[in-house]
Amino acid sequence: MSQKTEVAVIGAGRMGQIHGPNAARHPDLSVRYVVETDPVLVQKLAAQLGATIATLEDALGDPAIKGVVIASSTDMHLEHSLACVGAGKVVLCEKPIDLDLAKARAAAPKFEGARFVLGFNRRFDPHVSALRQKIAAGVIGDLETLTLINHDPAAPPPAFIPRSGGLFKDFTIHDLDLAYAILGEAPSEIFATASCLVDPMIAELGDVDTARIILRTKSNKLCVISNTRRSGYGYDQRVEAYGSKGMAATANERIDTVEVWSEAGAHASPIRPNFLNRYMPSYAAEMDHFADVMVRGVKPQVGYAEGLAALAWAEACAESARTNAVVRL
Amino acid sequence: MSQKTEVAVIGAGRMGQIHGPNAARHPDLSVRYVVETDPVLVQKLAAQLGATIATLEDALGDPAIKGVVIASSTDMHLEHSLACVGAGKVVLCEKPIDLDLAKARAAAPKFEGARFVLGFNRRFDPHVSALRQKIAAGVIGDLETLTLINHDPAAPPPAFIPRSGGLFKDFTIHDLDLAYAILGEAPSEIFATASCLVDPMIAELGDVDTARIILRTKSNKLCVISNTRRSGYGYDQRVEAYGSKGMAATANERIDTVEVWSEAGAHASPIRPNFLNRYMPSYAAEMDHFADVMVRGVKPQVGYAEGLAALAWAEACAESARTNAVVRL
Amino acid sequence: MSQKTEVAVIGAGRMGQIHGPNAARHPDLSVRYVVETDPVLVQKLAAQLGATIATLEDALGDPAIKGVVIASSTDMHLEHSLACVGAGKVVLCEKPIDLDLAKARAAAPKFEGARFVLGFNRRFDPHVSALRQKIAAGVIGDLETLTLINHDPAAPPPAFIPRSGGLFKDFTIHDLDLAYAILGEAPSEIFATASCLVDPMIAELGDVDTARIILRTKSNKLCVISNTRRSGYGYDQRVEAYGSKGMAATANERIDTVEVWSEAGAHASPIRPNFLNRYMPSYAAEMDHFADVMVRGVKPQVGYAEGLAALAWAEACAESARTNAVVRL
Amino acid sequence: MSQKTEVAVIGAGRMGQIHGPNAARHPDLSVRYVVETDPVLVQKLAAQLGATIATLEDALGDPAIKGVVIASSTDMHLEHSLACVGAGKVVLCEKPIDLDLAKARAAAPKFEGARFVLGFNRRFDPHVSALRQKIAAGVIGDLETLTLINHDPAAPPPAFIPRSGGLFKDFTIHDLDLAYAILGEAPSEIFATASCLVDPMIAELGDVDTARIILRTKSNKLCVISNTRRSGYGYDQRVEAYGSKGMAATANERIDTVEVWSEAGAHASPIRPNFLNRYMPSYAAEMDHFADVMVRGVKPQVGYAEGLAALAWAEACAESARTNAVVRL
Repeated sequence: MSQKTEVAVIGAGRMGQIHGPNAARHPDLSVRYVVETDPVLVQKLAAQLGATIATLEDALGDPAIKGVVIASSTDMHLEHSLACVGAGKVVLCEKPIDLDLAKARAAAPKFEGARFVLGFNRRFDPHVSALRQKIAAGVIGDLETLTLINHDPAAPPPAFIPRSGGLFKDFTIHDLDLAYAILGEAPSEIFATASCLVDPMIAELGDVDTARIILRTKSNKLCVISNTRRSGYGYDQRVEAYGSKGMAATANERIDTVEVWSEAGAHASPIRPNFLNRYMPSYAAEMDHFADVMVRGVKPQVGYAEGLAALAWAEACAESARTNAVVRL
Repeated sequence: MSQKTEVAVIGAGRMGQIHGPNAARHPDLSVRYVVETDPVLVQKLAAQLGATIATLEDALGDPAIKGVVIASSTDMHLEHSLACVGAGKVVLCEKPIDLDLAKARAAAPKFEGARFVLGFNRRFDPHVSALRQKIAAGVIGDLETLTLINHDPAAPPPAFIPRSGGLFKDFTIHDLDLAYAILGEAPSEIFATASCLVDPMIAELGDVDTARIILRTKSNKLCVISNTRRSGYGYDQRVEAYGSKGMAATANERIDTVEVWSEAGAHASPIRPNFLNRYMPSYAAEMDHFADVMVRGVKPQVGYAEGLAALAWAEACAESARTNAVVRL
Repeated sequence: MSQKTEVAVIGAGRMGQIHGPNAARHPDLSVRYVVETDPVLVQKLAAQLGATIATLEDALGDPAIKGVVIASSTDMHLEHSLACVGAGKVVLCEKPIDLDLAKARAAAPKFEGARFVLGFNRRFDPHVSALRQKIAAGVIGDLETLTLINHDPAAPPPAFIPRSGGLFKDFTIHDLDLAYAILGEAPSEIFATASCLVDPMIAELGDVDTARIILRTKSNKLCVISNTRRSGYGYDQRVEAYGSKGMAATANERIDTVEVWSEAGAHASPIRPNFLNRYMPSYAAEMDHFADVMVRGVKPQVGYAEGLAALAWAEACAESARTNAVVRL
Repeated sequence: MSQKTEVAVIGAGRMGQIHGPNAARHPDLSVRYVVETDPVLVQKLAAQLGATIATLEDALGDPAIKGVVIASSTDMHLEHSLACVGAGKVVLCEKPIDLDLAKARAAAPKFEGARFVLGFNRRFDPHVSALRQKIAAGVIGDLETLTLINHDPAAPPPAFIPRSGGLFKDFTIHDLDLAYAILGEAPSEIFATASCLVDPMIAELGDVDTARIILRTKSNKLCVISNTRRSGYGYDQRVEAYGSKGMAATANERIDTVEVWSEAGAHASPIRPNFLNRYMPSYAAEMDHFADVMVRGVKPQVGYAEGLAALAWAEACAESARTNAVVRL
């Protein structure tokens, strides 16, 4: 329909298969193009969305395209973002902006003034949003300390580790951004310590799988981040915010509400097992925000600057873990 | 796409606005027609679904149409169902089949052999399904007693009462069908007692707003149904199944998982406030079932016979409440 | 110490072994005598409490004795109560006052003006007290309906059944009194229905093991009582009070707060398994009340009249279950 | 009674008023003496326990006295312990053994072979014990990481701070011992960071009120400790143990089980507000253990060596916080 805003989707892999249908389903958006080098993936996603297969050049050259959703592989995020921003498109780009901090810093000036939304999806999670609203409403008084629990259900395949950027840039980066969003303040000091407890192969590949991190802000707020690659009990995603008058926390959702009572006790159903079934509503809310930025002129809640900051903090985590010392920022 | 099964939707009111988009969104279905007498409603829904406005005759006369979703007003359910079944269509019809038991009984022979799904949506609720699977797996031993809690958040407008069929046919009928589905046995005796505690207007209109009902089956299983038109705390939908080895229950979902701890205690967010946000997944699962019946030859889980039985039990409830005596079936 | 009030304990069986130590431990009370016909039991309890073994006559004849705790067998409750009241003692008597309603009614005039506390212990349960305070404070608006869940963990030994008075007089009587206490109104109609689902032996002995009861008060409040002799999951003791503005409920306590999360879900520890570990605080609070009645002139919260009323309602339950009809009171 | 074991209690202040009655109530123990310099406190406690007021010399000189409970002020713990151990008594001593690590180390040889129980009460908490049993039973696989949350409800009076030894020696010391008990391994590295967020007076007195600490053991297990002097929501005492197959946690107990549902959500009653009503069962279990050590020859679960170790770790926390660096042990 003519009043819908036309967008292109770059990438038809795991994240493209999330964002593509979300865009197609959105009442304000219409997906005109899918851009992807893999012929099987692009065929499938384009068919599913009723969209046309296109090259990046063609997609960006079409003036009807107002926005682009970038869901390509991590190493292409920055190049694709630069191309889209250069073509004057509004962008929703998956995190991270890049794994190379120097490269990302060098590119920063080109994003000034761009309408660029970075896909830190947890900011858009309805439970996190409700928590932040309550904190803003003062229900816990002044926010003083924060605990973020981010535990993956099971370790990724070994092949993923070398190109992941390591635990901190790949995984902790979500918590670093979320801590910043909730605390409203950047960390001034970071201490990170990590172990390899899950799988010795991860250590052999030079990475870690279990970490505890403490952030201190300029106003002496403290934040603890708890990370593991394998929880053994599902995808544990919790936020605990402590203030001068109390505490506010999000809990894990369960796959159903059934509880069974027996002589052995009470048994509740498992928590949502992975990011796909846990965070689908957050990806939909993220797409709503992208549409608002494009259609209603809303200011991006999280953009290139935040992606750059989180990447720098992730590097500081890695440095702290390596040197076993506090890193000052 | 050519491999999708074409359906028509009758009714563009409250339930049509639920079922229509669910059908349109379904990967196996395509909505070709919307049938509705109200010109504004039909225009809006047809546009939203990308469907054509049609008369009942035209829709039923089109051989491409394999199935019909009936979401018309209650007084038209039976007439529309007869027309669709007569035209050889597969039907998904909103509950109840009719408010007049004699009329519904008389029509029953015409539904023999028909592929007719009745929209008792709670059977398709994921939490209820999970509960039933656990019971079937024997986690509570032999099922012995059942408690169904079905409390509406707030009383309906007075205008709704006279054409509703009364609390038992309009509201309790869901619980009567669900009790039957879970117990796997029809009630042999019913005792119902009711009060008007919510709004004296409801009593003036000859109805009640608060009821407690006990069903006894032939094998002496007992079931308690708790109904109210106004809970004051949201839409309370719980099932408690008691067996020889334990208990299994569903709980209410909350609008978010946030909990706030203060000196006053712990505060959790409200439960889902009404049937729309509580039962959307059940309507989607119901549509899945309808598609399976049409496309894969699956046998309807709940059809005309079940609708007739539940209607008869609802009448028995009304009789029991009126006579203050047990009704034997 | 001289300022303690001296009491006697009648009965050194199961309930005497609860009340005796509670009295001995109480800062205001001192147990001077234990009265019991069983020589082993009396020896043991007297030694434990540092008390003297005495006959009923001697105990009642001692003017230093201000109060008597009656924990004898049910068939002696009334006789012992009459003797104690006749001797001018303040009495705490275990429930029920008797199993024979006519006999209990005939004795009623002799209890007028007596300071007689009947041991309906659930009125003294801290969770129930907290619930009643919240209801009284108006947190749920006007109380409209009530649900009492009272499920025993496992059926009593067959030998207990014939002398128990049956499910309603032995077990349901607690709920009948509690419903009255919470509703603040006596039932005007009772419907009870019962099954024997737990153990056929119970049916052979003329009793039932599973019951559902609906009480209606004069102001049309409704109360559902759920009873079973065997839950399969511990001692289930819950109260749900529904009002015009919301709901207040008590939950079961667990034996510890440990929760285990695994791939299979979340597992919480069992609820308290039986009345002894569930209701110890209620027996202690009951003893506090008895001391207050004796020492501080407080009016008994629950006495002979309430015991008589609950017994009559228990008989009405039995009659309703037998006749399968509503009993009007 | 002659078969009870006679003990003395030193100290009639806050902790003496807990331990004294616990000893007096214990079936195996009898309190013969109370030793205390404050004439009012000693009079009151001795009268309450039915014990005799004595000097330390007289109490230790009485060969009938087998054990001593030391509940004197912190600065007397070591001197009193040495005197009791020197006199051949079995000792239950309140934590900490001393605030001066060098002094405590110097005294250590005198405790070799002594039957000395140190009052780290949380080891005896029934919920913690249940958790440890489940971990030992393998329900979470190999224990890998631990989180201890220890939040006081409200800051102590300023006068308490200077003689407390500071947050780490006074408060965190409990967590350090508990971490050791649960992990079964001493920390090899400690990082502590602290802020003064609750009350600037605490900073003026040279202390902190909010801390986050990470312990690493030799086998690379990680433990996070969360401390605050003022939660604003009661006494938050939680343990979360993460393993290779899942997680086990204790939760806070509430003052009652009542939950109220309204349009605003669900409200649960507050958690236990302070250590007295939270940890009474742990002090009773600690007394049971002391009696077992004295009467049944059971080996102390936690003694001088553990007290010394925890004190050293508390100093390491203080050093880490001061230097903002990891302390290796």
